[in-house]
Parts: sequence; structure tokens; C-alpha cells
Amino acid sequence: MMKNQFAVIGIGRFGYSLATSLYNLGYDVIAIDVREDIIRNISDKVTYAVQADATNMDTLEELGLRNVEVAIVSIGTDVNKSILAALNALELGIKKVYAKALNEQQAKVLYKIGVHKVFLPERDMGRKVAHNIVSNNILDLIELDPNHSVMEINALEEWGGKSLAELDLRAKHGINVIAVKRGDHLNISPKPTDKIWKDDILVCIGDNKTLYSLQS
Amino acid sequence: MMKNQFAVIGIGRFGYSLATSLYNLGYDVIAIDVREDIIRNISDKVTYAVQADATNMDTLEELGLRNVEVAIVSIGTDVNKSILAALNALELGIKKVYAKALNEQQAKVLYKIGVHKVFLPERDMGRKVAHNIVSNNILDLIELDPNHSVMEINALEEWGGKSLAELDLRAKHGINVIAVKRGDHLNISPKPTDKIWKDDILVCIGDNKTLYSLQS
Ligand SMILES: Nc1ncnc2c1ncn2[C@@H]1O[C@H](COP(=O)(O)OP(=O)(O)OP(=O)(O)O)[C@@H](O)[C@H]1O
Ligand SMILES: Nc1ncnc2c1ncn2[C@@H]1O[C@H](COP(=O)(O)OP(=O)(O)OP(=O)(O)O)[C@@H](O)[C@H]1O
Ligand SMILES: [Ca+2]
Ligand SMILES: [Ca+2]
Ligand SMILES: [Ca+2]
Ligand SMILES: [Ca+2]
Repeated sequence: MMKNQFAVIGIGRFGYSLATSLYNLGYDVIAIDVREDIIRNISDKVTYAVQADATNMDTLEELGLRNVEVAIVSIGTDVNKSILAALNALELGIKKVYAKALNEQQAKVLYKIGVHKVFLPERDMGRKVAHNIVSNNILDLIELDPNHSVMEINALEEWGGKSLAELDLRAKHGINVIAVKRGDHLNISPKPTDKIWKDDILVCIGDNKTLYSLQS
Repeated sequence: MMKNQFAVIGIGRFGYSLATSLYNLGYDVIAIDVREDIIRNISDKVTYAVQADATNMDTLEELGLRNVEVAIVSIGTDVNKSILAALNALELGIKKVYAKALNEQQAKVLYKIGVHKVFLPERDMGRKVAHNIVSNNILDLIELDPNHSVMEINALEEWGGKSLAELDLRAKHGINVIAVKRGDHLNISPKPTDKIWKDDILVCIGDNKTLYSLQS
């Protein structure tokens, strides 16, 4: 097994971002797609890009795909092809086979055939963007439970110039500030005496409703 | 203007998740798609679902779309239709017009015509999943800067039974634990004496490299 070598099968938008991100994190990445134009476009952004049909077992064997640590099937629209490609990867003996699914039903089928992890990127991002739209100030979040999140928010204008102790967000809003971003500078252990500037980005943990209510 | 009323134009996977999430958060949502089957499928999961071509200005006017607070164009594949739909929404006078884009170039075009916010769900999720794959323990993350993140991670087996003070992750790994999830219970102000169990999920802030290196 080639340690830290990944295969991304299907270079749509998600597959492209995944393959190039893994490569940029310093790993070896094989990108596979049936379309030649897509392979041409990604060829200098991954270790190795190859035009091949992942539903064809012989082709995958010839590529030596069995040697990768993880294969991620990122074929979305054609469910049958996605399942076939995943089955092939499993049959090759690849230890970790992951796949992208369009919806929960497809995710279930993929788990049933033995896929180890299924991603639903459009579903997950739809949820995240809903939070972002409902509160303009929310830049990113991790949902911790139905009522609490870690959120990256814009500081309110009226907070500018005040220290965290003066603002007392914990007592007033039940929010803990865990980091403050100011341009390129990141403060990951903010002190009560630290002042907030109006363009600061705060990373907070707290109650969703309170966090949403912080509208400038 | 109908406050807190949203229109989602284009009910693909992202649009579907976005529209139903906004509705579940308690807002009024109009879902628009050219395809009848898609409208039928979402009709009982949003306030109002209507089959219409968003590139047609007359149709949008008749729908009274100008009254929504935010319109989100979630047509991905056909760039021209996405641009036309966004231009229509802007011309109707909707104060906030957002759109989904396939890639950075399309995002630029959308900003140029006046779209207020552009989302790139597949790109963003590709990046997130790359982090998740590189470290099996990372469940979700917010990138704070190129070197630091807030991350949701699985507790390592060897941490089970030890208190946060005993583990001393801050001194040993430069990691601050900001919350502990145990099943349905969430502890958002963990104390040094709190014990970690082996199936706990920790929300931490710290250095990406250290966080990645925490492999069980
Ligand atoms: N049998 C196959 N072998 C290899 N690649 C394939 C195969 N079938 C489809 N693909 C490729 O998979 C890629 C992703 O497929 P598709 O566009 O259907 O998924 P998607 O879920 O809409 O992707 P995204 O939303 O991430 O763009 C396409 O570039 C397509 O050429
Ligand atoms: N002119 C239009 N008016 C309204 N809806 C449209 C129009 N053109 C396309 N749509 C709808 O937009 C939806 C999303 O389009 P498409 O599938 O091309 O995007 P996508 O980026 O691949 O979506 P996703 O990845 O989220 O599934 C489709 O359901 C399609 O029917
Ligand atoms: Ca596609
Ligand atoms: Ca997609
Ligand atoms: Ca689609
Ligand atoms: Ca996140």
C-alpha cells in the first residue's frame, strides 16, 4: 500500500476541489475521469491524472489502483456508475472506499454495498448556507447540537473600541469568545482586557438563537 | 417587503437542502424550478413551490417575487441561465440576491453583475472533506487562518478516563478544548477536572498540524 496516496474518481466540481486540496496538503493524488477535457484541465494540479472509465474493472487493475490508501468516488449524477465504481474499488481490495452521494437514499445504498464513508456535500452546504443567510453576520459554523454552535461572526459596529470584559458577552448573551481574527492576525487566547475593533471577526461558542440575534 | 421571506430559484441538491433548511428554521420559502417533478417533490417541504422559468421576467413579476427579502439563485450547470435569473432578480428590486457558482470565474461574473453573495458549495465541501480524509478524527472544522482551525475531533482511545487537567492538551499539543459532546449532552464550559470518555467528541482550537497528528 502506498501510504498517503489517494485516488479521486470522478472530477466534477466536488471531485476537483477534493483532489486539488489533497494534493495541496502534500499528498499524492491520482485523478480519474472518463472525460478527456477534464483530465487535461486537472493534470498539472495533481500527481497523476488519467482518463479512464471507473466502471471497468480491467482498466482500474491496469492502473494499479489497488495500491492507494483511500479511493473517493465523486460521481454524482449517474447513481449506477457511482455504485459500480465503488464496488470495483472495494473488489480491488482498497482499504478505504468513500463516496459522494446526492441524497440520503443513495447514501444508504452506498453504505450497504460496503462503502466506508459517504459525503453529501450539497446537502451539508445547503444547511450551512441557510444559517449564513438567516444571520448575515455568520461566516461559518459547526453545529454542535440542535441548539448550540461554534460560529465565526463579524463583530458588531457598536463593539468597536470595547474590551471583552466591557462587552461581557458571556453574561449578556451567553456567548464565549474563543478567538479573534484581525486581518492576518489570529488571537487564539483572547484576554478580558483585549479590545475588539469594528472589523474584527470573532469565533464564538454559544446558543444558536443568541448568535443569530446578533444583527448589526 | 415580506420580512424573512426567501426565494430559492433552482431546486437541485443544494437548492433543495437550502430551501428546506430555511423552511425548517421557521422562515417562509418560495421554491422555484422549471421542472414539474422537482416542484411536486418539494411542495410540502416549503411554504410555496412553483414551476416557473426564472429567466423569464414576466413570470417572476407575476409571482410577486419582488417582495422577498433574499433570492438565492441555485442553478449551477447552465451558467447563462444562472446569470439571467440573477439579473432578473436584481432588476425586480430584490435587496439581496445571492447565487451558487460552479467555480471562481463564474463567481466573479456573478459579483460583477451585482450579485451580493456567491456560494461555491462543491469547492468548499471538497476542501472540508480533504481535511476529514487526511485525518480520520476530524469531523468538522472552521479554518481560521492557513495554520489554525476550530475542529470537532473524536477523542483518542487513550484519553478515556483522564481529566482535561491530566491530559493537559494545551501544554502537550497546543490545543484548547472548548466543548465536549457526549451523546446528546453538550458541555460548553469544560473544567480541568472534567473527565473525557473514549466516545466523546471534542471541539478544539489549535494548530492544524497538531490537530492532524492526533490519529488513533
Ligand atoms: N464511469 C466513470 N468513470 C470515471 N468518471 C466518471 C464516470 N462517470 C462519470 N464520471 C465523471 O464524474 C464527474 C462527476 O460527475 P457528475 O457531474 O455527474 O457529478 P456531480 O455530483 O454533478 O458533480 P459536482 O456537483 O461535484 O460537479 C464528471 O466529470 C464525469 O465525467
Ligand atoms: N431557467 C430556470 N428556471 C428555474 N429553474 C431552473 C432553470 N434552469 C435550471 N433550473 C433548475 O435548477 C436546478 C439546479 O440546476 P443544476 O442541476 O444544473 O445545478 P447543479 O449546480 O448541478 O445543482 P446541484 O449540484 O445542487 O444538484 C435544476 O433542478 C434545474 O431544473
Ligand atoms: Ca455535475
Ligand atoms: Ca453539485
Ligand atoms: Ca445537478
Ligand atoms: Ca464548518
